[in-house]
Amino acid sequence: MLHLAAYHPQIPQNTGTLLRLSSCLGIKLDLIRPFGFVFDDKRLKRAGMDYIDTANYEIHDSFELFLGKYKSRRIIAMEANEISTVHHKFQYQEDDILIVGSEHDGFMPQDLQCCSDMVKIPMLPKKRSLNMAISAAMVLNQAMSQLNIFPKI
Amino acid sequence: MLHLAAYHPQIPQNTGTLLRLSSCLGIKLDLIRPFGFVFDDKRLKRAGMDYIDTANYEIHDSFELFLGKYKSRRIIAMEANEISTVHHKFQYQEDDILIVGSEHDGFMPQDLQCCSDMVKIPMLPKKRSLNMAISAAMVLNQAMSQLNIFPKI
Repeated sequence: MLHLAAYHPQIPQNTGTLLRLSSCLGIKLDLIRPFGFVFDDKRLKRAGMDYIDTANYEIHDSFELFLGKYKSRRIIAMEANEISTVHHKFQYQEDDILIVGSEHDGFMPQDLQCCSDMVKIPMLPKKRSLNMAISAAMVLNQAMSQLNIFPKI
Repeated sequence: MLHLAAYHPQIPQNTGTLLRLSSCLGIKLDLIRPFGFVFDDKRLKRAGMDYIDTANYEIHDSFELFLGKYKSRRIIAMEANEISTVHHKFQYQEDDILIVGSEHDGFMPQDLQCCSDMVKIPMLPKKRSLNMAISAAMVLNQAMSQLNIFPKI
């Protein structure tokens, strides 16, 4: 099944938002170290991020270990590169892993090269970028909609 | 053109996120009073929300004034009601206004009745809800994708 992943997340509120998003939608979340904050269940809970009990998430100590675990799967990077495919034209697959980069630096070039494809959300020129969690939610929405895998209600 | 609207927003960070989202995507944002915070350009800017200069937004002093301004247009409420259409099956139109409810209370019943349609993001049962800005981004993504109105890049 489709996963969401966060590469070197720096801002705890964004990671909390991704935990909440993936929990509500029934999507597994992969979190790839190093983080820019102390990942501590009690601290996240105190901050109101009490989705952690119901979220299906896994922490990977490095990008290499993450890749090693999922070597048979496509890793789709959210990256505003010139050659990236716009996210609403991309053909997703049910076992894709959608990975969002670090808030500050995106991806390290050698790690980006390990990804199968790159997608970007089309934005007006000369604007700053979207919030990391918002970008992740939009790409996840696009993939889930195209694959028709939203929870049945 | 498609608009995004926020009804009685309570949390300034969410409104900042919507300003950033709409600014990046070239979508007009309607903000409907009362707010749960002081809307003050300088304060929002100090909080890093410096999208306000480039955002196309309008503040409406009441829902009635908002409705009066857009009476020829469909108002599509994001509302997790049993009879709401799931957001990825809804047929959007280019001049729809997508409106997200207050973080705490959603919509007042009499105001919800004035909306043309209701959409909801399908979620797992017994989960808490998605963050308001995340919900807005997902529904906006769905509409822009379906209508093929993302900025051309």
